[in-house]
Amino acid sequence: MIKAGIVGGTGYTGVELLRLLAQHPGVELTAITSRQEAGTPVSALFPSLRGRIALAFSHPDQARLGECDVVFFATPNGIAMGEARALLDAGVRIIDLSADFRIQDVAEWERWYKLKHAAPDLVAQAVYGLCEVNRDRIRAARLVANPGCYPTAIQLGLLPLIESRAVDLDHLIADAKSGVSGAGRKAELHILHAEAADNFSAYGLAGHRHWPEIRQGLAQAAGREVGLVFIPHLTPMIRGIHATLYGRIAKEMDFQALYEQRYAGEPFVDVMPAGSAPDTRSARAANVCRIAVHRPREQSQRRDTLTVLSVIDNLMKGASGQAVQNMNLMFGRPETEGLQQVAVVP
Amino acid sequence: MIKAGIVGGTGYTGVELLRLLAQHPGVELTAITSRQEAGTPVSALFPSLRGRIALAFSHPDQARLGECDVVFFATPNGIAMGEARALLDAGVRIIDLSADFRIQDVAEWERWYKLKHAAPDLVAQAVYGLCEVNRDRIRAARLVANPGCYPTAIQLGLLPLIESRAVDLDHLIADAKSGVSGAGRKAELHILHAEAADNFSAYGLAGHRHWPEIRQGLAQAAGREVGLVFIPHLTPMIRGIHATLYGRIAKEMDFQALYEQRYAGEPFVDVMPAGSAPDTRSARAANVCRIAVHRPREQSQRRDTLTVLSVIDNLMKGASGQAVQNMNLMFGRPETEGLQQVAVVP
Amino acid sequence: MIKAGIVGGTGYTGVELLRLLAQHPGVELTAITSRQEAGTPVSALFPSLRGRIALAFSHPDQARLGECDVVFFATPNGIAMGEARALLDAGVRIIDLSADFRIQDVAEWERWYKLKHAAPDLVAQAVYGLCEVNRDRIRAARLVANPGCYPTAIQLGLLPLIESRAVDLDHLIADAKSGVSGAGRKAELHILHAEAADNFSAYGLAGHRHWPEIRQGLAQAAGREVGLVFIPHLTPMIRGIHATLYGRIAKEMDFQALYEQRYAGEPFVDVMPAGSAPDTRSARAANVCRIAVHRPREQSQRRDTLTVLSVIDNLMKGASGQAVQNMNLMFGRPETEGLQQVAVVP
Amino acid sequence: MIKAGIVGGTGYTGVELLRLLAQHPGVELTAITSRQEAGTPVSALFPSLRGRIALAFSHPDQARLGECDVVFFATPNGIAMGEARALLDAGVRIIDLSADFRIQDVAEWERWYKLKHAAPDLVAQAVYGLCEVNRDRIRAARLVANPGCYPTAIQLGLLPLIESRAVDLDHLIADAKSGVSGAGRKAELHILHAEAADNFSAYGLAGHRHWPEIRQGLAQAAGREVGLVFIPHLTPMIRGIHATLYGRIAKEMDFQALYEQRYAGEPFVDVMPAGSAPDTRSARAANVCRIAVHRPREQSQRRDTLTVLSVIDNLMKGASGQAVQNMNLMFGRPETEGLQQVAVVP
Repeated sequence: MIKAGIVGGTGYTGVELLRLLAQHPGVELTAITSRQEAGTPVSALFPSLRGRIALAFSHPDQARLGECDVVFFATPNGIAMGEARALLDAGVRIIDLSADFRIQDVAEWERWYKLKHAAPDLVAQAVYGLCEVNRDRIRAARLVANPGCYPTAIQLGLLPLIESRAVDLDHLIADAKSGVSGAGRKAELHILHAEAADNFSAYGLAGHRHWPEIRQGLAQAAGREVGLVFIPHLTPMIRGIHATLYGRIAKEMDFQALYEQRYAGEPFVDVMPAGSAPDTRSARAANVCRIAVHRPREQSQRRDTLTVLSVIDNLMKGASGQAVQNMNLMFGRPETEGLQQVAVVP
Repeated sequence: MIKAGIVGGTGYTGVELLRLLAQHPGVELTAITSRQEAGTPVSALFPSLRGRIALAFSHPDQARLGECDVVFFATPNGIAMGEARALLDAGVRIIDLSADFRIQDVAEWERWYKLKHAAPDLVAQAVYGLCEVNRDRIRAARLVANPGCYPTAIQLGLLPLIESRAVDLDHLIADAKSGVSGAGRKAELHILHAEAADNFSAYGLAGHRHWPEIRQGLAQAAGREVGLVFIPHLTPMIRGIHATLYGRIAKEMDFQALYEQRYAGEPFVDVMPAGSAPDTRSARAANVCRIAVHRPREQSQRRDTLTVLSVIDNLMKGASGQAVQNMNLMFGRPETEGLQQVAVVP
Repeated sequence: MIKAGIVGGTGYTGVELLRLLAQHPGVELTAITSRQEAGTPVSALFPSLRGRIALAFSHPDQARLGECDVVFFATPNGIAMGEARALLDAGVRIIDLSADFRIQDVAEWERWYKLKHAAPDLVAQAVYGLCEVNRDRIRAARLVANPGCYPTAIQLGLLPLIESRAVDLDHLIADAKSGVSGAGRKAELHILHAEAADNFSAYGLAGHRHWPEIRQGLAQAAGREVGLVFIPHLTPMIRGIHATLYGRIAKEMDFQALYEQRYAGEPFVDVMPAGSAPDTRSARAANVCRIAVHRPREQSQRRDTLTVLSVIDNLMKGASGQAVQNMNLMFGRPETEGLQQVAVVP
Repeated sequence: MIKAGIVGGTGYTGVELLRLLAQHPGVELTAITSRQEAGTPVSALFPSLRGRIALAFSHPDQARLGECDVVFFATPNGIAMGEARALLDAGVRIIDLSADFRIQDVAEWERWYKLKHAAPDLVAQAVYGLCEVNRDRIRAARLVANPGCYPTAIQLGLLPLIESRAVDLDHLIADAKSGVSGAGRKAELHILHAEAADNFSAYGLAGHRHWPEIRQGLAQAAGREVGLVFIPHLTPMIRGIHATLYGRIAKEMDFQALYEQRYAGEPFVDVMPAGSAPDTRSARAANVCRIAVHRPREQSQRRDTLTVLSVIDNLMKGASGQAVQNMNLMFGRPETEGLQQVAVVP
């Protein structure tokens, strides 16, 4: 049994981790910390976990995380970078769901996150936890930077085109739509039901922090810099990301076959049949990315532009599900263990 | 392995059964029928099941249901009563999710369902599948009438009070609110998103078909007739039932203890701590009924009236989850097998 | 032209007042205050008002509210009671949308609102602004206590029964459901979209502040104390209240006629035909209360219990619309002026 | 008073027209037809109109539409083209909210709408009712083809760039998101609340009928053919369209000034300040298109690509509101008469 701890378990990625780990046959959850909720039973804060998680939140200082095999950070940005070293030194492996170790260029990270990085040397050691790209490195990693939600949907959607140089790498467009849980469990006005329901808008137009993360991943796949316009939108649903991706064709090929081959054997990437339009609910509460690739039929509709549709559940393949997938890889467990939940429809 | 078939698998209770059976370690799904969709792969109609259900829908005549150990009817009312006998004769056990076998008084059933009953003798054999009431009879049953969604939430909420004669049995009130999936996967105007979203109303005021079912169950528990006003409402959510139940106190007792004792050991009924207000999402996609019992603090607020809150997922404990629970009982499997999904929150 | 000011215009009742007053032909809006947003153009905070409201929020100290004919308080509880006297002394008439002047029994108010009342003598002067009860007194009032949202829906729904003593006054039940805007424009976790959407629960079970207000109104109508159980619920919609009201019949009469006669000539109360189930959207963004009264057809369904359905838009007839209706009465304008908006459907 | 009739008033554009005309000071509504609902009072089908519309639906044959000054067709595609000639011959002016007269190239229309056009000569006479483009021609028109919802949002969003040749005309991208009412009041599975709520997907990927309409409008503005990828999406809200538009800059200019100048004096187009992200609710139930234009700050984010955000209420500026605007122009009324509703927020 893997002894697992969670730092900061009161947010949405935290409760989703709890849902997954409560059902994972190879994990024993030994500690979950929260400064604010120390002493509160987990099931008092989240009645959905009554009878399934017996733990109470513990204060970080009392949690004896050093005795865990793995610790998940489900914390706001800026926490994990300060606490990782001590745990690593104690032999604990870390999966950080925040952004602290995602960007290799520390100066770039500091510019976007408005913080001084506390552990630049650990950034260099961290492995970016997109399993479909870094599977082997993740197996050996001591510190995994779990990808962001938009970056997961967009990278998985574009990678086959980038790797094959099928599209103009200088003018990619990612028009992405997210459910409201992506903003976290935070008391903020704009994500109130009375504000966000029956409403739709773009946001982050001056620059969204996931942009440098996406660009880094695409550039690594391309072996060169890429140009990307990324416009996120808030859509009135709880979970789900839908990325609509546009690229100008640079090289003719069978795009459907390209995607099917790239993701053949991937347990959590589903290339849909040609003509499909995946809906976000087909991934609701499941650890899967569903992708469809489209090309207009008529010349007048610009046959030179490809449209790729990529959907995930932002809390699953976009966060906690992917974190458990990373854990499975790191500890030599079957990659799909504990992640076989079928999407909840309707 | 239990060989299971589903008749009529294109509705919401059907797809929910598929979600559950796909994850059930003791079941082999051998057939699923649909006249309209015969030949269509299940995963083409429900992409959420891609990679999880390999079957295609088959025409009822070709489905060889007689070779199953158990057949679930997830059909509109009026189908199962015509097809049950042949299957029973072939040794197949049946769990009917429709209303055909729920009401023991056939004349009453015919009056509410506006149909001539095709198999009154089978009604007499059928066991009402509310496990918390009929567990032993279900184990031996060949034909189980799976309870309706409102009846499940309301009976579980009222049974302790009825059995103990704690309240005035002549004047019970059940004010119930249901998500829209309760109306089924049917193309009807009033359940369109543009009609039902951001909206709330009562319905069925001239009499709802679940009323005689609830009354039957409560009367059996009471050993006498009961009086019940039942007002259902449509609420803009996908899944979930919230029943708010009112009863005038006839006998003083410790009501919290009454509920805890009645449901001690029940794996799928959760009596919440005093003061709780269970929300429907705490049961979302999980096979559980959560109940809280309240009494006003002040005399002026009518301390003589109890309020009971009872929530379920209408497709789980209110339909398909309960059906699988019944199957587990009928086949001597652990009652909770394949039903350990944690509620999806948020 | 009536010169109108608004104190505290950044909440939902404030922006709804702005929507109404911007379209009212007899009103000149001269000031709107907000400590936090002083200097911000109203249309910067609420782009829906771009081109319709030229004012900026002003600091309360600079707003020269003393020059207004009427001032609306759209503030949290506890503000109006401190500021009303100076305005009244300056000859300004006041419509308070908060709860400060609603409860005549000051000790009772202090117990529920956990505040020391700053102006008990003004409470005695204040007129409760339920136009359908106090129309003549409102015309002459200098200080109007605008009713709460639940109290409006529930009182209008029960008054004909109370006034005629048609039901048992000791055992009334009000099962009420509210949209999320009823909780105000406040950054609180439980009203986040990701918490409140696709979810339903009761709340306020230990006692809701609208309970004493409702009881006061019903007791005045009855000329004696009444017994009332009031259970509010949060429903995933933006606007709307649906009250389902239950009363045991004490006196036989034609209940449909009773309601039609009580509200004959009322411009903003709509008694629906027998058999109707008003939905909340039929009042969305309109100043109307729609009511239907039901009696079960069958003896077994407890023909001795009446069910009344009462729906309003909580921000219109439940707050700002009613406030404008009060203003019209106070200033001798046609009661319906500026309040003829048709409900927005779908 | 303009005598107005409506053909086919039972859909969403019909009830929205009713809402507007009931409040329009210059219009007398004399007839509204529906084959199915002939004889039913309008307010029985739409209780939101109780007390506001006294008419009943009449059978088309009995409606005496020839005595109207103007007839609105709020019918499915293919009806108006058959009935327009007789009305025009009787001197009635027509505003068609369906697609029958929108596409000047009849063969193209027939290809997309799978119908033989019944009145090609009337197509030639029809004026495309986008007021901001064809205001003078609309004033004189006898037959106005009221634009589609997507075409309104997208054309208004792109016109300044097209007319000024500021962007590459061969590679425009319109990523558009619509509320569910855009699909009409039709009993179809995919727009059920239980299907569409808490869900998001693209659709119409093989080609959407609004594409040729948009292309026609843009080509007319450009004086040459244009290339456009148009991907519509269904978003879980009732009303609203959000178009996110991408164009590669071909000519440097002050884009904010370009938009402000193009729409200076337009009563129903609101160019937002630089940096804004209009949300759809800021146009909810109001006749307005709000537009913002964005350019990335950093070179790496592709400063060579412009993003334009354009929002409308699909039933107002995207259908019935624009129809009333057209009527005002045709009959010499103030363009804003009856269209001053403030957006409903929250």
